[in-house]
Amino acid sequence: MSNKSQKNQSVKNAKAESAKMTTTDVMKMRHTLSHVLAAAVKELYSEVKLGIGPAIDTGFYYDIDFGDAKVAEADLPKIEKKMRGILQRKFEMVRSEKTRNDALSWAIEGKQSLKKELIDELPESETISFYAMVDKSGKTIFEDLCKGPHVEGSEQVGAFKLVRLAGAYWRGDEKRQMLTRIYGVAFNEQSELDEYLKRQEEAKARDHRKLGKELDLYTFSDLVGAGLPMFTPRGTVLRDVLAEYSLSLRKKAGFQRVWTPHITKVDLYKTSGHYAKFGDELFMVHSQVNGEEFALKPMNCPHHTQIFASRPRTYRDMPIRYMEPTTDYRDEKTGELGGLSRVRSLTQDDSHVFCRNSQIKQEIQNLVKIVRELYETVGMSKLRARLSYRSDEDKYLGDPKLWEMAQGEIRQAAIDNGLDFFEMEGEAAFYGPKIDFMAEDAIGREHQVATIQLDFVQPERFGLEFVNEKGEKERPVMIHHATLGSIERFMSVFIEHTAGWFPFWAAPEQVRILTINDQVADYVSKITEVLDSLELHEPIYQAGCRYTVDDSDDSLGKKIKRATEMKIPCVLIVGPKDVEAGEVSVRMRDGEEKVKLSKLAGFLKGLK
Amino acid sequence: MSNKSQKNQSVKNAKAESAKMTTTDVMKMRHTLSHVLAAAVKELYSEVKLGIGPAIDTGFYYDIDFGDAKVAEADLPKIEKKMRGILQRKFEMVRSEKTRNDALSWAIEGKQSLKKELIDELPESETISFYAMVDKSGKTIFEDLCKGPHVEGSEQVGAFKLVRLAGAYWRGDEKRQMLTRIYGVAFNEQSELDEYLKRQEEAKARDHRKLGKELDLYTFSDLVGAGLPMFTPRGTVLRDVLAEYSLSLRKKAGFQRVWTPHITKVDLYKTSGHYAKFGDELFMVHSQVNGEEFALKPMNCPHHTQIFASRPRTYRDMPIRYMEPTTDYRDEKTGELGGLSRVRSLTQDDSHVFCRNSQIKQEIQNLVKIVRELYETVGMSKLRARLSYRSDEDKYLGDPKLWEMAQGEIRQAAIDNGLDFFEMEGEAAFYGPKIDFMAEDAIGREHQVATIQLDFVQPERFGLEFVNEKGEKERPVMIHHATLGSIERFMSVFIEHTAGWFPFWAAPEQVRILTINDQVADYVSKITEVLDSLELHEPIYQAGCRYTVDDSDDSLGKKIKRATEMKIPCVLIVGPKDVEAGEVSVRMRDGEEKVKLSKLAGFLKGLK
Repeated sequence: MSNKSQKNQSVKNAKAESAKMTTTDVMKMRHTLSHVLAAAVKELYSEVKLGIGPAIDTGFYYDIDFGDAKVAEADLPKIEKKMRGILQRKFEMVRSEKTRNDALSWAIEGKQSLKKELIDELPESETISFYAMVDKSGKTIFEDLCKGPHVEGSEQVGAFKLVRLAGAYWRGDEKRQMLTRIYGVAFNEQSELDEYLKRQEEAKARDHRKLGKELDLYTFSDLVGAGLPMFTPRGTVLRDVLAEYSLSLRKKAGFQRVWTPHITKVDLYKTSGHYAKFGDELFMVHSQVNGEEFALKPMNCPHHTQIFASRPRTYRDMPIRYMEPTTDYRDEKTGELGGLSRVRSLTQDDSHVFCRNSQIKQEIQNLVKIVRELYETVGMSKLRARLSYRSDEDKYLGDPKLWEMAQGEIRQAAIDNGLDFFEMEGEAAFYGPKIDFMAEDAIGREHQVATIQLDFVQPERFGLEFVNEKGEKERPVMIHHATLGSIERFMSVFIEHTAGWFPFWAAPEQVRILTINDQVADYVSKITEVLDSLELHEPIYQAGCRYTVDDSDDSLGKKIKRATEMKIPCVLIVGPKDVEAGEVSVRMRDGEEKVKLSKLAGFLKGLK
Repeated sequence: MSNKSQKNQSVKNAKAESAKMTTTDVMKMRHTLSHVLAAAVKELYSEVKLGIGPAIDTGFYYDIDFGDAKVAEADLPKIEKKMRGILQRKFEMVRSEKTRNDALSWAIEGKQSLKKELIDELPESETISFYAMVDKSGKTIFEDLCKGPHVEGSEQVGAFKLVRLAGAYWRGDEKRQMLTRIYGVAFNEQSELDEYLKRQEEAKARDHRKLGKELDLYTFSDLVGAGLPMFTPRGTVLRDVLAEYSLSLRKKAGFQRVWTPHITKVDLYKTSGHYAKFGDELFMVHSQVNGEEFALKPMNCPHHTQIFASRPRTYRDMPIRYMEPTTDYRDEKTGELGGLSRVRSLTQDDSHVFCRNSQIKQEIQNLVKIVRELYETVGMSKLRARLSYRSDEDKYLGDPKLWEMAQGEIRQAAIDNGLDFFEMEGEAAFYGPKIDFMAEDAIGREHQVATIQLDFVQPERFGLEFVNEKGEKERPVMIHHATLGSIERFMSVFIEHTAGWFPFWAAPEQVRILTINDQVADYVSKITEVLDSLELHEPIYQAGCRYTVDDSDDSLGKKIKRATEMKIPCVLIVGPKDVEAGEVSVRMRDGEEKVKLSKLAGFLKGLK
């Protein structure tokens, strides 16, 4: 497994690309809007000093020194209104060049000390260009030091909205002053903006950090440290069912579970080649007793080679398929950590196949099948595959001819399996080309998930071999695979994808029984008998149901509210009338129905 | 969990205590034998220089510099014969004292430079005593510098045998010369010696390091490091079924699984009190990115307090029971590591109950029930319990009154549950008294296994609390529990207890099908259908059977030999006659029988 899998985690949304204008035009328009923002702020707060204002991914921002003026999110509508007023004045963006002296005079006269600093630092050879917003009457509304490019004028500006404020150090230097950054979002069409904002709202409501707390799934402690989540009983159920499902699919495909320790001498990574590439990113472990040095494992492939190497192997044994759900440690910077998306303790559902060259195709096919089945089950069946190849850089280890062959195998496998794929040069792991899968979630965001990686390098470096039919020693190839990837990150995706409404099989609390009064206690035990003896088989085996009983003195309304807040998929409401009728009221997310007690087991078995 | 659990691992065999002579007499007799050994060596190799020769646990040894003489295990019978000859000369052990000068002269004249060094280093005030073996005629057979004590003479020497040679540095200093250590075992009665030697033979045949290799259960790699086993597919099955069984028992008793990372800021252990006690035994983890310091967790209780503390709790929530099978790291010295008995990566089936004082009794009872059920299932139902209390030393944290109360609770629980127990002062964990369980294995050795520990200290130090019926804040008590203890160490015990003949439910490969010829291929698929659809429920659920098919061209004899070597509990032999009769030959450890294919599933379900 490459050390990079956590870093490449969010894949930019593909929808923007389908807009009518080209990406460049969108970016120009956003850039123009940042000037409009600056102009509006200048009109409202004449004493401000402007920093820089670029176009970004979904809109634009401008960094501004407001001096003594206080500005808050509540002021954004006012600024936005001023921007719309400026746009109504119909302007053209006019480019001009100034000499260094004229540019400096412009900055000094306008009391723009930050701009002056930028001009001062421009190389002598640089053309110093300005963009002015000039209205029909020829009057300049606002002029800014700027390289461009911009759209022609206000007519080409699309739909926008100011969304938030943030602090930002001038020049990104924490020793310099803190400026106020105003963010706007902007798209060519109002419908795109609406869709984006709606998705943002949805994403906010689904934020796994918010839901993680509300649904009591995991917790952090200052005594333990950032990026090191601890999973509560509910979160652990979710972890375990996901991990077990992933294991069960691979078990069916002939994988055998192994176990390796979390630390190792660095010799292992020196041999594998990881040390030269990522040695300075390792968490080092030090023995106080005798000074020995170890590293926390950031991946498992080198350990697995040692299990392969522990016995003589023959062609009859091949392929050998190991799997291990195990926690790796990666030294992410504290600032990059957030919820479960990026953690220091990442548990991979890692697998390694050792096979013959002639078996690569079949093995990839098996893995693709596993990936498809898993993502189908979790409701994310729309998958794209990125095939990552080497580039001409010399960071790639191993024989270029083997790379050629391996890249060909991967491409052919993608075609044979009908994958929706695209190809990228220079994105391969150092040891071989790979297929990364991107899955689309319920609100259209793509997430990098599973991976299949070929590796001709580590078998070579570890001297792995088996005896073939002719009695000769032959080198196996390794195929690295993770289905969920990091379970923690997959959980963050899955929580947001489902908005916390987990499918029945995965829900930490599958059923909650709410009593209407005390008279139903005996009947409740009949229900719990049914729940205790329930056996589910799909997608994983489960003996007994995960349920609780809310027989508190609270009103039914309050009990329902609590169960809904915890997003329990199946709520059973039991009152005296149900006892009489021998049934229960089943309240699901999409409605309520009466189910006979005798049919309850069958009903629950049918839930997805 | 106390940091000590791994260190206290082997409990001395209780049988020696039942011998007719007191322990002191046995030790005196062994000490005398070390002199007889030295005397015999001196007669055979006149130029030797003698080091020291104490009595030990099961016998005695003497460290000897043989100079240019070569001595090997093959020489032991010769030396032993000489010893028996000396014993037949009927001697008395006669003590005398010498002045320092006389003692030095004795050493110099005898060319005993090592003895001279010992005498030189004796404090001025020390009486310098010698023991001489004096025969009936008054002749001194051998005299040695010695503090004693010894038995009166050769008449009181029991049964002995020289067993092995080893190298040993003089004075235990690796910079000094390497001496040859000759080990003997000795008991008062020949029957005891025979029993001991037989058990040694049995233990040798069962040695989990030997079986671990033969049965392909785990492996070590120099690239990974000492004390860090990696588990192969077979060993991982064994790990997993044992861990899962332990989990399933606790799940039934209301435990919920949680998950915590393997590293933490040391702040956690400073708060818990572990840092002050064991801080210098921690594996320290260092971030190369930003210099942050962490520790590898050597226990899980402090992490679990943080999950408890992550939400407000009320009396309705109590008791809260967490369990986590997780790997802890302890910095054992390389010299102390061996197989799975003592490892650096130890996976605990750890549990923590947070309860009210009034719930302690019931919780201990639940845990005792779990311990009994598990050890009954693994065939080690003979348990003894050691109740460990505080002593007057000040290493124990917390209010002495709480200790009194807790020790009372533990004692009462031991009585109420009819445990076979004994009490030890000064053996408690620093945070509270405990019950440690010792289980007897198939060859009569006792092993420390499960533990139940009360803890009033950590809840206090972490400020844990819940709201009671009166709306007041109340402090919970913690109960630490591990059923298997370290899974690695338990595996070492279990492998030796079963001699690798694991019960059907735990066997990595439960069934192997051996074909007599090619004609049975179709019939074999009928058998594998039965195996694939087998469902076992006791002691843990299992879908499908773990089997392989040996349809190689080798002779049946060779196939049977291989299956026996791998200690497969159930071997199915299939020939053309079986196909005709619709049956299979089932070969188990204790015999062979024919089973109808239609009855095979039922037969396998009945296996223990």
